Amino acid sequence: MDVILAKRRGEAHDRATLEGFIGGYVRGEVPDYQVAAWLMAVVWRGMTARETADLTEVMADSGERLDLAEFAHPVDKHSTGGVGDKTTLVLAPLLAALGASVAKMSGRGLGHTGGTIDKLEAIPGFRAELDQADFFRQVREVGVAVTGQTKALAPADGLLYALRDATGTVASLPLIASSIMSKKLAGGARTIVLDVKVGHGAFMRTQDEARGLAAAMVAIGAHAGRTVRAVLSNMDEPLGFAVGHALEVREAVATLRGGGPPDLRELVVALATELLEAAGLVTDADEVEVALDDGRALRRFERWVAAQGGDVARIDDLDVAPDTVDWRADASGFLASLDAQRVGAAVGQLGGGRRQKGDALDLGVGAVVRAKVGDPVNAGDALVTLHHRGAAGLDAALSTLEGAAVISDRRERRPLILEVVR
Amino acid sequence: MDVILAKRRGEAHDRATLEGFIGGYVRGEVPDYQVAAWLMAVVWRGMTARETADLTEVMADSGERLDLAEFAHPVDKHSTGGVGDKTTLVLAPLLAALGASVAKMSGRGLGHTGGTIDKLEAIPGFRAELDQADFFRQVREVGVAVTGQTKALAPADGLLYALRDATGTVASLPLIASSIMSKKLAGGARTIVLDVKVGHGAFMRTQDEARGLAAAMVAIGAHAGRTVRAVLSNMDEPLGFAVGHALEVREAVATLRGGGPPDLRELVVALATELLEAAGLVTDADEVEVALDDGRALRRFERWVAAQGGDVARIDDLDVAPDTVDWRADASGFLASLDAQRVGAAVGQLGGGRRQKGDALDLGVGAVVRAKVGDPVNAGDALVTLHHRGAAGLDAALSTLEGAAVISDRRERRPLILEVVR
Repeated sequence: MDVILAKRRGEAHDRATLEGFIGGYVRGEVPDYQVAAWLMAVVWRGMTARETADLTEVMADSGERLDLAEFAHPVDKHSTGGVGDKTTLVLAPLLAALGASVAKMSGRGLGHTGGTIDKLEAIPGFRAELDQADFFRQVREVGVAVTGQTKALAPADGLLYALRDATGTVASLPLIASSIMSKKLAGGARTIVLDVKVGHGAFMRTQDEARGLAAAMVAIGAHAGRTVRAVLSNMDEPLGFAVGHALEVREAVATLRGGGPPDLRELVVALATELLEAAGLVTDADEVEVALDDGRALRRFERWVAAQGGDVARIDDLDVAPDTVDWRADASGFLASLDAQRVGAAVGQLGGGRRQKGDALDLGVGAVVRAKVGDPVNAGDALVTLHHRGAAGLDAALSTLEGAAVISDRRERRPLILEVVR
Repeated sequence: MDVILAKRRGEAHDRATLEGFIGGYVRGEVPDYQVAAWLMAVVWRGMTARETADLTEVMADSGERLDLAEFAHPVDKHSTGGVGDKTTLVLAPLLAALGASVAKMSGRGLGHTGGTIDKLEAIPGFRAELDQADFFRQVREVGVAVTGQTKALAPADGLLYALRDATGTVASLPLIASSIMSKKLAGGARTIVLDVKVGHGAFMRTQDEARGLAAAMVAIGAHAGRTVRAVLSNMDEPLGFAVGHALEVREAVATLRGGGPPDLRELVVALATELLEAAGLVTDADEVEVALDDGRALRRFERWVAAQGGDVARIDDLDVAPDTVDWRADASGFLASLDAQRVGAAVGQLGGGRRQKGDALDLGVGAVVRAKVGDPVNAGDALVTLHHRGAAGLDAALSTLEGAAVISDRRERRPLILEVVR
């Protein structure tokens, strides 16, 4: 009660207070309705930088922490969530190829499309769930392992997030920043890069908002003795061309071969350069690009997939849904934006997304974007090709796409990388 | 969720929205953590007058409403809570003597001292719990009946109040106003007077705050077609001299005989005049004073007590705790204030208050104030006489009183009645 009243008055809590309150919640001693009222008071009154950092540490301490001290240059990456975002599939082996250790825990997706773990399971045989001994052994031997949550990292975050989701208190800078960073701190990496998406389909609608969130997370990292950098990237359209699990793996492999969509490559290179510079492993982006072009990243990807049981011979022969239909432009001009959320939602309706936890996914369905922002298009041109199985979800997906594209008379492009917050 | 988010954005709800949300809570469909977050958002964003009135009606509609249409001039009174406040014991029979119908439901006290019902039980034989048939019959025959809650009036208020109490959301003008008025609207009276206490020991610390609350409650009444007036009264000290159940009944009887403490008589006359003027039953305070002085109010009190089983012969011979000890002034000058909360707390420690619902009370213990604000006092004069039973709670009560009196060089008095809001 004192905690709620103090926040109601706009006071900052000290760390011991946060430990008592959040710890009490995790232990079931503080009821959810008190935490709910406190959350709304936090939305109202905010938190100081110090307080946000303390909250994050308290959340990180609510469960076990991974100890990555045995590994050279343990790094991690987090994205605030993008449609078609297969960045981790390219970035993780690239980082390992350049000397970093990637011991990454990743969640499954909920909503439009699945998460990284779900995407990897589009490779036949891939085992996404490793026990901790196998997980650590693989990082030691291959330099990269990605698994579902083998332990409850920062269980306070899971509890608080569910409560925020039910009480209209998700949108709050200190609560968002502490939620993301608590898992990253518990995950043990010393150097962390954050991909903060900006745009209509993203959680942060404006660059100012995104910069504020990025700065808060960088400050939390500094407080905890970690090096954190944040890349603000534009999300006026899906990242790359492919949306959907198998299609995204295919596109990631093309990028690991030195090809792939220019925007995906640009983002991967930017994130890798920030991380590896901060870790002292490279001095510029050229070194990163070479590792993509000379096959080192691809070979590391293949070793990684094989280590987790995936059939490397199948990475060019994934099960993609055989039926296709094109969704076409209804005007001529230049593509000004393509609503990434709608494209993601359409793929979800085809069977590629979960409505609730535990739902099975069709990893073969998806969408391929045929025009990127700034491209000239003519009425009747295909803008998106859907990969589907028969009629399942097709009408819903096509009607979801209605109005998703904005076609303009003038050619306008925003840069993909808006700024870096260090 | 939409309701929480709308209030988070500072929007006003319409009545249907409030019905859905509060009704859903009462039915158990909306979980308490969502209501808790909404309550904090209301504290933050406030409510419009219209919205507050709608919320009050929704709460009043959450249970049964008393139908008092058969009675002439049904009136009611509410106090925001004072120490030594035995006003209802005098006011109710006075109103009945002047032609109004008082069908009053009253709660039991929690905290320092008991409520009106508890005080009445200091009269041997008094039955405070009437079923509805007896309650209505008594109003018909005697013009006055006071009972514990025979039905759940405004159950939404009880639920919301408990949640507010646990979530730091008690202090909020629209929530306080709607809580008080929902029970008054459900109680069925057409004319209502509110005694809003102002001062250090009161819920409203300043006259401005109290005026705001009073105006909000008057507006709610107008919206509901009731006549509501609010008297703002000073609470720099306990009301009258007596604090404690039997002692307060004794003082109420003295007042009904035309005597009693001047401040108690002043407040009773002011409240009665506002109510009876609004109901068209008197034209000025003189008519009210005469009914106190000529014995009509006392006779109505005796009929009322007898109707509820009380032994009228015992009203001058109540069981008051036999042991007394004086708490004395430590300086000379004029009494500037006497902390009513502390006097109430001391009586509670002697056994006259409940720590939790259902605790038994010692109706005989109490305190008698020996000096009122503005009186000259000399060091060593008795300021408060405690009525106790042996050592039980005595040390605690005396140490609670330490520092309760402020003695000043200058004589200053605030008027008891600060203003009337109509």
